[in-house]
Amino acid sequence: MRKLLIVFVLLAPAHLAAQPRRSPAPTPLQREYQPAADRIIAAALADSTAWNKLAELTDGFGHRFSGSESLERAIDWVLARMKTEGLDNVRGEPVMVPRWVRGHESAELLEPRYARLPMLGLGQSVGTPRGGIQAEVLVVGSFDDLKARAAEARGRIVLFDVPFTNYGQTVRYRGIGAVEAAKVGAVAMLLRSVGPFGMKTPHTGSMQPYDSVVPRIPGAAIAMEDAAMMRRMQQRGQKIVVRLEMEAQMLPDSPSRNVVGELVGREKPEEVVVFGGHIDSWDVGTGAMDDAGGVVIAWEAVRLLQKLGLRPRRTIRVVGWTNEENGLRGGNAYRDTHRAELDRHVAAIESDGGTFKFRGFGFTGSDPAYAVVRQIGRLLRPLGADTVFVGGGGADIGPIMQLGVPGLAHIVDGTRYFWYHHTEADNVDKIDPRELAENVAAMAVMAYVLADLPAPLPRK
Amino acid sequence: MRKLLIVFVLLAPAHLAAQPRRSPAPTPLQREYQPAADRIIAAALADSTAWNKLAELTDGFGHRFSGSESLERAIDWVLARMKTEGLDNVRGEPVMVPRWVRGHESAELLEPRYARLPMLGLGQSVGTPRGGIQAEVLVVGSFDDLKARAAEARGRIVLFDVPFTNYGQTVRYRGIGAVEAAKVGAVAMLLRSVGPFGMKTPHTGSMQPYDSVVPRIPGAAIAMEDAAMMRRMQQRGQKIVVRLEMEAQMLPDSPSRNVVGELVGREKPEEVVVFGGHIDSWDVGTGAMDDAGGVVIAWEAVRLLQKLGLRPRRTIRVVGWTNEENGLRGGNAYRDTHRAELDRHVAAIESDGGTFKFRGFGFTGSDPAYAVVRQIGRLLRPLGADTVFVGGGGADIGPIMQLGVPGLAHIVDGTRYFWYHHTEADNVDKIDPRELAENVAAMAVMAYVLADLPAPLPRK
Repeated sequence: MRKLLIVFVLLAPAHLAAQPRRSPAPTPLQREYQPAADRIIAAALADSTAWNKLAELTDGFGHRFSGSESLERAIDWVLARMKTEGLDNVRGEPVMVPRWVRGHESAELLEPRYARLPMLGLGQSVGTPRGGIQAEVLVVGSFDDLKARAAEARGRIVLFDVPFTNYGQTVRYRGIGAVEAAKVGAVAMLLRSVGPFGMKTPHTGSMQPYDSVVPRIPGAAIAMEDAAMMRRMQQRGQKIVVRLEMEAQMLPDSPSRNVVGELVGREKPEEVVVFGGHIDSWDVGTGAMDDAGGVVIAWEAVRLLQKLGLRPRRTIRVVGWTNEENGLRGGNAYRDTHRAELDRHVAAIESDGGTFKFRGFGFTGSDPAYAVVRQIGRLLRPLGADTVFVGGGGADIGPIMQLGVPGLAHIVDGTRYFWYHHTEADNVDKIDPRELAENVAAMAVMAYVLADLPAPLPRK
Repeated sequence: MRKLLIVFVLLAPAHLAAQPRRSPAPTPLQREYQPAADRIIAAALADSTAWNKLAELTDGFGHRFSGSESLERAIDWVLARMKTEGLDNVRGEPVMVPRWVRGHESAELLEPRYARLPMLGLGQSVGTPRGGIQAEVLVVGSFDDLKARAAEARGRIVLFDVPFTNYGQTVRYRGIGAVEAAKVGAVAMLLRSVGPFGMKTPHTGSMQPYDSVVPRIPGAAIAMEDAAMMRRMQQRGQKIVVRLEMEAQMLPDSPSRNVVGELVGREKPEEVVVFGGHIDSWDVGTGAMDDAGGVVIAWEAVRLLQKLGLRPRRTIRVVGWTNEENGLRGGNAYRDTHRAELDRHVAAIESDGGTFKFRGFGFTGSDPAYAVVRQIGRLLRPLGADTVFVGGGGADIGPIMQLGVPGLAHIVDGTRYFWYHHTEADNVDKIDPRELAENVAAMAVMAYVLADLPAPLPRK
């Protein structure tokens, strides 16, 4: 998951209006679809396939970074299994993706004492010269602080030691920290990892593109423990020297695919509800919650509907978008490949905030459409979360939402998501099988009803 | 902290009798000492020296592993600072310590797919031959499971994937896992790290001595995520191959010191209350909670009493024992060096379970002594924890307790202690300054009153 999504998803519960707690009497929609919803929920909760599938995918291939062999092998596996399961129109849709490679990298504290600093270079970063960059460190706590100390930054490695507040706020330093540091003459940028908790855990993630008018300096994340330690050392008046070495480089674009499978509609197969997550991950951990889980819950939702014989009027299409993390090429390619049918896309749902306890959906679209989606949301009362928040979407469905497709975000409890985000610790063991099954149920109900309504959601 | 202590400390609250919630009216002891206790508590809570001192110590020298230069430099720093502060009889008491060195080490999953496995060799382990040990893995869930599958173990690397229940139970696999695996022909032992939570975090710690009649095979801990993954791979019928490479070796014993400083008693200087923690740590992280915190709270307690002009009848001696982690040479040397005065040791208090929220003390000694210590405990009501549990001690004070010295354990909330225990993540940022100050207060009150009582604690 990248920055884009957060604006919609994670701030939504706190900042935007939610439906009242006391719901009105069931509407005709609710009366019509509650029996199917109850069947779907019961079947999902009785089924452990989702967790096992997620484990097989993440154990079997490891990370799925854009341009890697492991991503393409994982995609092959998903496509083969979708075919075995009898999904319709299973295919990989070609996408060229950027290929950033990390190579060997290290950071060492040389003064005031020696320590190896666990680190992860940031995506899109340039590498260092061979032999690394060795320089005194200037620790700053904000962009304002950097500005105030600009005279001290020249020739230094600037460390942004910015404690986590929320992702949207804190990730700005990952995005433009290197450019801002370069503007005042720094030779490299270090970042306190973006997350509220760590166990000496660096978090990677993308930098924004370099500015064309300032030197390209490398950027890397270090553990929050080490960032705080260097801040204390600076406060004590100690000289801090770090050596940073990174082989990072951009290689030519590489072929990948969006993963696609369908449950073709029984009446209006040309009208589509598209949903899923991104099949790629960062090159650390196994991307279980970011975002294999998002792909698996949509995939399992379709398999479950098929198994229950619940074929809706319209087509439900599960997509595992590629290259969400460092390029968004999959989301853009989907828009381009399917441009001709976007006016027949009833809705798009993305899951890219983890698969923890289900909390509801977020919706972006017309007011009349929101009224309908809220009614669908109430069908999920058995899951303990029947709210549809105002505002929802996702990075991969952003390009088609911009062309008018109503968008939904799948929302879960986010308490621990950023503990693991873009780290070696994003693994399937952090995901609870019951919670995963509840998310399958929620996605299946939402997609099924959206695809089966007598009329498509009214657009703006 | 090692296994020994746990038996006393961590099981105590759950398993042993505590005093009733409704306390009786204040005793003469309480009436006499409550004013001093209140002064001590107020002064400790108004003082941030403890946390800053802990940060300076751990930031400044890093780990403090037996035989390392960083341990001896840290000891020099503590002694110098104690002298500056005006503590009495500051000295390092010589101790020869074992010197196990880790060297380069790595573990890699080769089949069914490649992955680097974060690992830490276990203390006392032998290394592998140069080039490492490459073998198929047999995953077992217990010693019984290993026995049942003994025929499959020959020539294999045995992985004990034992989920954490409590430290005492689970650490047995670290202690004797390599010996048990060797008995059935295994070539190396891997261990699911001993802890309830991790973020791809290996935990080191000592193995027990090798058995003289079975081959010495290397032992290493891997992250719980990877242990669980290999179990799943085995359940799927996949062949698992790992290569383990370790340069670990034992070098000749090396000189170290127990750190000692005193507040000499005003009436009976030859009678002693000794307290502290261990100054050594494992060779990962900075040993902030295990156990620099234990040393610092006793040290700060003495400094605080001195500052308040509270000089008790007897001597209070703070000790930072060396080599608790992989030899207990410091605790044994203290017993031997001070053997002649042990009958004049009123009590010994050890803090080696972290410096989280203060929960009370545990006590091992005579019933009349327990009655007195319970009354002292009640002076700590302002800290919200006035209980003295039955049963208490610590690894370093074990040798003198065996010779009759009444022993106390300092007890804190243990919820997260084993998240960080023996890992790179044991750092000062995990320790709350307020909680640390409360622990200083508790240690100072307990030591002061024990040292000032009209009569020493009655022995058995």
